[in-house]
Amino acid sequence: MSSTTVALSDLIAALGGDLLGGSELRIAAIAPLDEADEHGISFLANPRYQAQLATTRAGCVIVAPALAEAAAARGAAIVTPDPYLYFARLTQWWAARARSRASAGVHPSAVVSPEARLGQGVEIGPLAVVEADAVIGDGARIGAHCVVERGAAVGAGTRLAPRVVLGHGCRIGARGIVHSGVVIGADGFGFAPSKSGYVKIEQLGNVRIGDDVEIGANTCIDRGALADTVIEDGVKLDNLIQIAHNVHIGRNTAMAGCAAVAGSTRIGANCTIGGAANIIGHLNIVDGVHISAATTITRSIAAPGVYSGPHPFEENSSWQKNAATLRQLHTLRERVRALEKK
Amino acid sequence: MSSTTVALSDLIAALGGDLLGGSELRIAAIAPLDEADEHGISFLANPRYQAQLATTRAGCVIVAPALAEAAAARGAAIVTPDPYLYFARLTQWWAARARSRASAGVHPSAVVSPEARLGQGVEIGPLAVVEADAVIGDGARIGAHCVVERGAAVGAGTRLAPRVVLGHGCRIGARGIVHSGVVIGADGFGFAPSKSGYVKIEQLGNVRIGDDVEIGANTCIDRGALADTVIEDGVKLDNLIQIAHNVHIGRNTAMAGCAAVAGSTRIGANCTIGGAANIIGHLNIVDGVHISAATTITRSIAAPGVYSGPHPFEENSSWQKNAATLRQLHTLRERVRALEKK
Amino acid sequence: MSSTTVALSDLIAALGGDLLGGSELRIAAIAPLDEADEHGISFLANPRYQAQLATTRAGCVIVAPALAEAAAARGAAIVTPDPYLYFARLTQWWAARARSRASAGVHPSAVVSPEARLGQGVEIGPLAVVEADAVIGDGARIGAHCVVERGAAVGAGTRLAPRVVLGHGCRIGARGIVHSGVVIGADGFGFAPSKSGYVKIEQLGNVRIGDDVEIGANTCIDRGALADTVIEDGVKLDNLIQIAHNVHIGRNTAMAGCAAVAGSTRIGANCTIGGAANIIGHLNIVDGVHISAATTITRSIAAPGVYSGPHPFEENSSWQKNAATLRQLHTLRERVRALEKK
Repeated sequence: MSSTTVALSDLIAALGGDLLGGSELRIAAIAPLDEADEHGISFLANPRYQAQLATTRAGCVIVAPALAEAAAARGAAIVTPDPYLYFARLTQWWAARARSRASAGVHPSAVVSPEARLGQGVEIGPLAVVEADAVIGDGARIGAHCVVERGAAVGAGTRLAPRVVLGHGCRIGARGIVHSGVVIGADGFGFAPSKSGYVKIEQLGNVRIGDDVEIGANTCIDRGALADTVIEDGVKLDNLIQIAHNVHIGRNTAMAGCAAVAGSTRIGANCTIGGAANIIGHLNIVDGVHISAATTITRSIAAPGVYSGPHPFEENSSWQKNAATLRQLHTLRERVRALEKK
Repeated sequence: MSSTTVALSDLIAALGGDLLGGSELRIAAIAPLDEADEHGISFLANPRYQAQLATTRAGCVIVAPALAEAAAARGAAIVTPDPYLYFARLTQWWAARARSRASAGVHPSAVVSPEARLGQGVEIGPLAVVEADAVIGDGARIGAHCVVERGAAVGAGTRLAPRVVLGHGCRIGARGIVHSGVVIGADGFGFAPSKSGYVKIEQLGNVRIGDDVEIGANTCIDRGALADTVIEDGVKLDNLIQIAHNVHIGRNTAMAGCAAVAGSTRIGANCTIGGAANIIGHLNIVDGVHISAATTITRSIAAPGVYSGPHPFEENSSWQKNAATLRQLHTLRERVRALEKK
Repeated sequence: MSSTTVALSDLIAALGGDLLGGSELRIAAIAPLDEADEHGISFLANPRYQAQLATTRAGCVIVAPALAEAAAARGAAIVTPDPYLYFARLTQWWAARARSRASAGVHPSAVVSPEARLGQGVEIGPLAVVEADAVIGDGARIGAHCVVERGAAVGAGTRLAPRVVLGHGCRIGARGIVHSGVVIGADGFGFAPSKSGYVKIEQLGNVRIGDDVEIGANTCIDRGALADTVIEDGVKLDNLIQIAHNVHIGRNTAMAGCAAVAGSTRIGANCTIGGAANIIGHLNIVDGVHISAATTITRSIAAPGVYSGPHPFEENSSWQKNAATLRQLHTLRERVRALEKK
């Protein structure tokens, strides 16, 4: 990444912002304030960390207007209303520079059905499989070892990392990113009990995913039983997440790693779901709900806000005593009630 | 799915049931009562939802005998003792109609050892790998990118979705379904401590899986240390489940997504394990135990019943106060005791 | 495995230990004390199980010096200071005997860039992909369907099971084992909020993994945002674990299945993290910390010791009453306080 350097002026030309000083400076790396050297660019998004301005060795710091003077006093600075957002755009620009320019086209080892439809500038990696009636949008990239089953659709500019399965009839929109190991469109978990054991309910729905969605490694999104499982535009899912059949996730909701949502639950827009949080089935969570990590949601949530539920951890011997008492908590309340009546 | 329609009479011929009215009706889709239109077929399994009979637009409703009259009063009806089971069988019949008739045979891109044994009517997908001494039963389907290692066995009629690994010496019985990303037969997690760090205990057992087992996407079942890990007939595992080495799961037990069972634990028959439930190692859970979602089982369970344990969730500020108090719960009990002694 | 037998004397020659009796004995299997027959070898590591010496049918038992006399009184015995460690080494020796001697070399179906560098005695499995500038160390084995992206490095003697993704620029050291489905180097989960939704922060760091590391099936280790995610020498990770960006795990720490560590958390050396435990982001856990299964760590831990936190499980009706009371725990404490003031 650092084999070539970038002139600050080129960076400003691409991303905007006001440059104070450093017009001759060349940048070799993006780095945190406390790790950057004189060839590094850093950002200061949180005014609480302003003291780091005095100690950082960074060649250039991205700051908000309020800190422009302090930043410029120590070296080059880029002034922009939202330094964190500027930093995000900088990483994108930086990655685009470094990205290997794989020539578009179908790798000769890929197995692509003649009945698949490929858009302009599509890239199909080695040993990928694209079945009949699949539709790959313009500029989409299908990684090595991906399987795009019959009738599935990948939107324009969407990238599947190596080894993604997109099941038959499932769709993802434009500009998405799907990481390795993701399984979209496996069967939902549905069975009817019978005297001779469970009888499978074939899952006849699909998965519909909007635009600008990112899905982390080894995450699973099951197809619906009759209707579809739906992920709206702008949703971000981290790794190892389980989305069961007929779940509906509203736009711009983000879920951290190892979260799980059981069947038919509906989550609103602009929610955040913490890591390893679980939401049981058939619930309704409104827009703007924030669920803390490792929280189990067992009832619908009708009001925006922050909801939490992990059991507090402690040094083990203390936990053992408290956990034993917890098993008698109801009785303890009865005892307090009895004392109050005296 | 809905490109062709089905005569109700054909459906009755295939699946049985008593048809009231609608002998001329053709069905285009299976749908829930509240979404079906006049070309749709729905079911009413729970008498609590009987009121929906009055409002559904479904062309035909599958009902139990007690509701036959009410259903027939509004349109076509199929009467059967167990409408939900009938619905399950209907989905299977429906899916079988729609399924692409992939011609059996070995895709030319697959890498199949000449020392593997393939049964009649076997289908091996693109880029699958089948190693020496593997045995593939009659009518089994091995999806794209699957790896069936040396000496592994797949029973008759079993289907591996794309990208399943079945490790060396591991076996799955007949009529199974294994979804994408499943890893059967990775090493169990076993090490002996030593002064220079952990020393690996090679895992010399296998995985033995019975008939009629379904395994969800990205689920892992480790091979045993010395003896085998065993999954009995009729077990249903959802996605992202962890089954550690030497676990034994009894017949017709079902586990929901993200559940985990640690090493050497034995779970009985006809149990249900909720999503994200965890069971620690070396326990014994008897037949007929039902564990709620997100419950951690830390002791053996000797009696059938329902067992629960998630920490209740709350609005965050309330949770914070209660969690802080929980850390002093044992002390609180002592204080109540002191009050009682006064 | 048991098709051939092994002379005890050969075993002693390879692994050491003092053999008492049985110089003519041949062993067919390694088995637990209660399952071994007269051709089996077992070990007794925990003196609590000494009584099993009287009942086991094992042909030979591995014991510590204190039990040498008792063991020899009943049949052959191998005496060694640490029987469990001896057993671990025995499993390795046993597995090496049984392992198929796959000829080293590149399978003709693999897609290996001419710009990749392969060491001596490297084995590349069927349909694996090795991109430009990847470096594969001497004697490393890359399983079927693996993807080693551009610039990634695999150390000498390390084995990737089938279907592992090692992302661009990521490195694993020598003598490692990576199980199927592992994804190393997917993007960390990082976004800047904006009025039009989340803006991706490209993840520019890599993953650096030391020597002698084992990683379980379907585990994910994300690349760092700017700096690297680091796994030190000797770390053992079980299945379905989530390691977020910029996590640092110290040497010889072991984590059981389904554990998760959120971004930028630092875990010390010689820790053990129980199954399904969660550690939130930006924490510091010192060396020698042991976290129980299903515990959620929400604060840094500054002292070695055992920490626990799962909510106790109960029979369901009892749990319901206690959980309801738990929601009023803070109030209950206030009531006790009021009683004390009377």
